[in-house]
Amino acid sequence: MFDSVIIGGGPAAMSAALNLKIRNKNFIILAGNEKVTGLSKAPSIENYLGIKNISGKDLLSTFEEHLDNMGIEKKNEMAYNILSMGDYFAVNAGNNFYDARTLIIATGKAKNNLIEGEEKYLGMGVGYCATCDGPLYRNKAVAIVSENEEGEEEARFLSEICSKVYYLPLYKSNFQEFNNVSVVKGKPKSVIGNGSKITSLSTSEGNIDVDAVFFIRNVLPVNQLLEGLELDDGSIKVNRTMATSISGVYACGDCAGKPFQISKAVGEGSIAALSAVKYIDSNMEVKL
Amino acid sequence: MFDSVIIGGGPAAMSAALNLKIRNKNFIILAGNEKVTGLSKAPSIENYLGIKNISGKDLLSTFEEHLDNMGIEKKNEMAYNILSMGDYFAVNAGNNFYDARTLIIATGKAKNNLIEGEEKYLGMGVGYCATCDGPLYRNKAVAIVSENEEGEEEARFLSEICSKVYYLPLYKSNFQEFNNVSVVKGKPKSVIGNGSKITSLSTSEGNIDVDAVFFIRNVLPVNQLLEGLELDDGSIKVNRTMATSISGVYACGDCAGKPFQISKAVGEGSIAALSAVKYIDSNMEVKL
Repeated sequence: MFDSVIIGGGPAAMSAALNLKIRNKNFIILAGNEKVTGLSKAPSIENYLGIKNISGKDLLSTFEEHLDNMGIEKKNEMAYNILSMGDYFAVNAGNNFYDARTLIIATGKAKNNLIEGEEKYLGMGVGYCATCDGPLYRNKAVAIVSENEEGEEEARFLSEICSKVYYLPLYKSNFQEFNNVSVVKGKPKSVIGNGSKITSLSTSEGNIDVDAVFFIRNVLPVNQLLEGLELDDGSIKVNRTMATSISGVYACGDCAGKPFQISKAVGEGSIAALSAVKYIDSNMEVKL
Repeated sequence: MFDSVIIGGGPAAMSAALNLKIRNKNFIILAGNEKVTGLSKAPSIENYLGIKNISGKDLLSTFEEHLDNMGIEKKNEMAYNILSMGDYFAVNAGNNFYDARTLIIATGKAKNNLIEGEEKYLGMGVGYCATCDGPLYRNKAVAIVSENEEGEEEARFLSEICSKVYYLPLYKSNFQEFNNVSVVKGKPKSVIGNGSKITSLSTSEGNIDVDAVFFIRNVLPVNQLLEGLELDDGSIKVNRTMATSISGVYACGDCAGKPFQISKAVGEGSIAALSAVKYIDSNMEVKL
């Protein structure tokens, strides 16, 4: 049982980790696919107090170095789903489950790019982790809509158990068709079903008959991660202690709303960690 | 007319300044008496992401250097009182007045050490700026209660116009009595008056008959600074955009509440600045 699981690997997550470490809490960081961050592409950052004119890439390296120096490691695992178990949480990260008394969500800018039918058919054919749910679709046709190269690994895996795999890359991909895997150039438009399960995926190049659609996203829609998490204009609703609508769950950084600034993310990460520490130590909800 | 006046000189104020500068706003920083900060005495700070294990003094120097590098200067003037003028604010800093469309308050940890009667007799003998109000007490007896050496300068000034000056240092002072100035060793206990004006100052060593008491504080009680500013448990009440109860006024850092952390102060400073920028650019209140 961990004191805390930090979900995300950016500045807010790193700042939270730093503070948990200093407060002697045991935690893990599920950083997911780290390649994907707008910050790493920023040519110059001038407004992070104390570090003059630096590229986003170098600032991230500086942050990583600070964590290394404190003996903090990130796991490149992605949290797909979290279950509330009463007084703790079970975090599903592909093949692994992690139990924790608190959660610190720092998943970055919320993307509101769900396609039509995606939310409706979640669990009825729509999934976010092929490794987890693929076996349910043995000998059936499935589609993978992927924002990054991780989807290619999932396609290889599914090709071994499903009758047909359609791969729709949303990034510049050189993925080659093989065996029962077809690459579809069209953009996904909607998930179509009969009310209780998926029947097909509609794309800009026509419909594909499938029993499941897996979306491999850089950032998971936060409300899919944990049921009951209240949102506010697409961001996770938090108060000034970074507490969310669920006891023991804190959010920080871009997923907790604007402005999308490093110093805000870092500041909120430390607040979230200190609020979690208070919660862990008192086993009571931080006063709203 | 400035776009903004920043009141305070610590990390929150510096971060706000950095962001206003980048957004091309014209502003001044009234940093007051900068010697006084708990941060400068911290032996080691490990949780400001990106800057490993540094003393508080060196971290402050690093911050100052960043500001220098951006061509930002602080004024060592202290804001004593702010008047709301409808769509702008007039900030009284001793002999100078500064007009600004927005205010960013970053005065540090609120001290709730007002003595009995202090608030009641504000403007009826109690004051926070001897230079400003001293002339009202020509040929009268006054007391100065001072948390720092600035009070000594005020005592010298008042000794020239008042009949008697009692000096009560609340710090380790080597101040010497001279002419009509007496140093009182007792601690101030309460301000006593007749309902409309002060008659004496009660101290642990007895009462002193005076017509005025000037309190020279490291940090001014925030609610004395600007009338109508709502507090919450002694801190300035803010929402997530760092907006206070008064349109165009933002607060950040320790004066806006716990936790008292550098990264929180820096993050809030940038949020406050960006909210002020939005307000200035739209001339409308930031949505609460």
